[in-house]
Amino acid sequence: MVIGGGFAGLAAARALARAAVDVTLVDRKNHHVFQPLLYQVAAAGLSPAEIASPIRRILRRQANVRVLLGEVVAIDPNEKRVRLADSGELGCDFLILAAGATHSYFGHDAWEPHAPGLKTIEDALEIRRRALIAFEQAERSEDAEARRQWLTFAVIGGGPTGVEMAGAFAEIARHSLVRDFRRIDPRVARVVLIEAGPRVLQSYPDDLSRKAQAQLEALGVQVWTGSPVTGIDETSVQVGADRLAARTIVWAAGVQGSPLARTLGVPLDRAGRVRVQADLSVPGHLSVFVVGDLAAFEQDGRAVPGVAPAAIQMGAHAGANVARAVRGEPPAAFRYRDKGSLATIGRRRAVALIGRLRLSGPVAWLAWLVIHIFFLIGFRNRLVVLFNWAWAYVTYDRSARLILGRGRGAAVTDGG
Amino acid sequence: MVIGGGFAGLAAARALARAAVDVTLVDRKNHHVFQPLLYQVAAAGLSPAEIASPIRRILRRQANVRVLLGEVVAIDPNEKRVRLADSGELGCDFLILAAGATHSYFGHDAWEPHAPGLKTIEDALEIRRRALIAFEQAERSEDAEARRQWLTFAVIGGGPTGVEMAGAFAEIARHSLVRDFRRIDPRVARVVLIEAGPRVLQSYPDDLSRKAQAQLEALGVQVWTGSPVTGIDETSVQVGADRLAARTIVWAAGVQGSPLARTLGVPLDRAGRVRVQADLSVPGHLSVFVVGDLAAFEQDGRAVPGVAPAAIQMGAHAGANVARAVRGEPPAAFRYRDKGSLATIGRRRAVALIGRLRLSGPVAWLAWLVIHIFFLIGFRNRLVVLFNWAWAYVTYDRSARLILGRGRGAAVTDGG
Repeated sequence: MVIGGGFAGLAAARALARAAVDVTLVDRKNHHVFQPLLYQVAAAGLSPAEIASPIRRILRRQANVRVLLGEVVAIDPNEKRVRLADSGELGCDFLILAAGATHSYFGHDAWEPHAPGLKTIEDALEIRRRALIAFEQAERSEDAEARRQWLTFAVIGGGPTGVEMAGAFAEIARHSLVRDFRRIDPRVARVVLIEAGPRVLQSYPDDLSRKAQAQLEALGVQVWTGSPVTGIDETSVQVGADRLAARTIVWAAGVQGSPLARTLGVPLDRAGRVRVQADLSVPGHLSVFVVGDLAAFEQDGRAVPGVAPAAIQMGAHAGANVARAVRGEPPAAFRYRDKGSLATIGRRRAVALIGRLRLSGPVAWLAWLVIHIFFLIGFRNRLVVLFNWAWAYVTYDRSARLILGRGRGAAVTDGG
Repeated sequence: MVIGGGFAGLAAARALARAAVDVTLVDRKNHHVFQPLLYQVAAAGLSPAEIASPIRRILRRQANVRVLLGEVVAIDPNEKRVRLADSGELGCDFLILAAGATHSYFGHDAWEPHAPGLKTIEDALEIRRRALIAFEQAERSEDAEARRQWLTFAVIGGGPTGVEMAGAFAEIARHSLVRDFRRIDPRVARVVLIEAGPRVLQSYPDDLSRKAQAQLEALGVQVWTGSPVTGIDETSVQVGADRLAARTIVWAAGVQGSPLARTLGVPLDRAGRVRVQADLSVPGHLSVFVVGDLAAFEQDGRAVPGVAPAAIQMGAHAGANVARAVRGEPPAAFRYRDKGSLATIGRRRAVALIGRLRLSGPVAWLAWLVIHIFFLIGFRNRLVVLFNWAWAYVTYDRSARLILGRGRGAAVTDGG
């Protein structure tokens, strides 16, 4: 059984295509999300369907896979049984757990409603809704200070997601909305990227971090490094003694393993991830594997990062190890092959680290674009996303500027 | 002031482009919806952003229009003031009310949660969610009778929306999902279209109604005419003594005017619409106009239908009458020009009535397709929708098969 239909879970299921096994893939969503482009849904540049595909659609040609929509709430690794939210149970011979990660507010769960994170399509739509409503509220407000608060966007966390989100907010304000309002000038909107550490993109070399920061600042983003957040409420972010009044706050600072890991009864690391063995199995359970963002795996003294390529490699490897076990062969040890990292900041702005090659600016941006189009699942989505990007590049327009939600008018009345 | 950003409200605002007035357009949504294609969002064929555009984006070149996101809850036609949900107030010299219609359950409001209607993007996403979850539940269910219930889709109301929705459900089941499931065969799904009157599409001539019904039946839809619904609960529709067990129920049977009309203090018709004068103004209030689905207007002894072309014509006419009043000219009487009607049933299946010309089958379908692409707002959306349709035509694929909602896993556990 495979739990999770993200990059790791899909790769695991696919690696078992020719094995003499029946695969059941369980996910609580019916769709796989191409996470690297999720921020573009939050930024109203893409529609959900353009970066998400039904899991059963993706796997429909693989006859030995059955896809189930269901939420796993507990795992018994000894009996290899899982319990579902509606109190059903499923058993199996091999278990590959790819349940991913969720936001971590470092013990401050009260911050969550004020600063949503970005992991699911629903998260992205919520951030989009808040950002678009902020401009609407600013347009309606008679009070200059209130307008200023509505037009301040705080992004917490200077990793790739935070950098991409901050860059996207800046582009919306400076380009996409410019002619749409009468009372406000969206260009006066402030986007502040808040990072506790000394620089943004800390997993990149120093010079690329500096270039990323310079590109963000050229877009008009204020970058606050060395600024640990100490408090968040509905209208502000507290950074030590400073208080930043902001109505749209996005959390991109911390992740932790899915709570499912805790039901395994095995040692976890500080971020709630499962410390896996060399073959990606769980200590003491040879036929239970953990892969993707939920696995803590060290290689050459460094943690394998929680990125899509690592998840895909782990998932495929665990699948292959199950196939080996079925054939009576011993498992193989996992080895991560780092193919490089890319982070985009905005149009013609990005940084890339590919082996020893360090790129920034238009070349890195083009590499980012080509790679993301290429890895998107489904030929149709590639075409549509490419068209959207070409359209947005020429017109600066954002196609998905919809404020949705049952809240209706109520949505614009809360808090002013 | 214009209240409502639908077809009528937009047309009114545009008709005032060259008048010496400041226009404020208020809507509780930030987007205009191209309602004739809303059923395609419910049927997972199109994404919301492809049929909806931000109202301020549509009107951004018209310098004398200001767009406000807000919910009007009451109108005082004497003072020409409106009250907003957040207790703000707005005044004006002329008021054009284009607040549209909502579902009517003919006094049975308890039916609404079990049989949602189709008026907003949120409605369409809810119907999409229910229909997709029904297939997932059927796949998970061990019980043959439960599977049968999950695979039964009831559409109540045989007007254009009901016909289109029933046809789309049948196509999903028979084509789009065929290879995706392991336990169920989606082709066994039953789609039942329930109509109280003697035939579907009652506003069309007899022979076109018959052809539409034949085309529906060729798609596998069961058409129950002369079948007034007497009860709806979570798992069934009651038609007289018959009980149809169905888990997905859509209401397309009745509409009524927006509740805003009641705050005007003027005579309404049975469907809650405002009986307007020849110039579309409200009796006793020369500078208050009601247009679109909320207006009851008779011409040559027949009610002008609640369709998009009528709404556009009324909106433009009321706008022109305001411009006349500003110039000191008397208002003109409204006259509806019927350009024809079209209803689609599925691929290569449709009926059309254009003047005396009656079309059905592929020719009518092609006419429907060309006209809908042409009237979609925005060149970009035209291209994307055209691409989507071409893709779906060739592959039978439906691009937007996403189950979204904060309910998450819980969504699939309710009721089995």
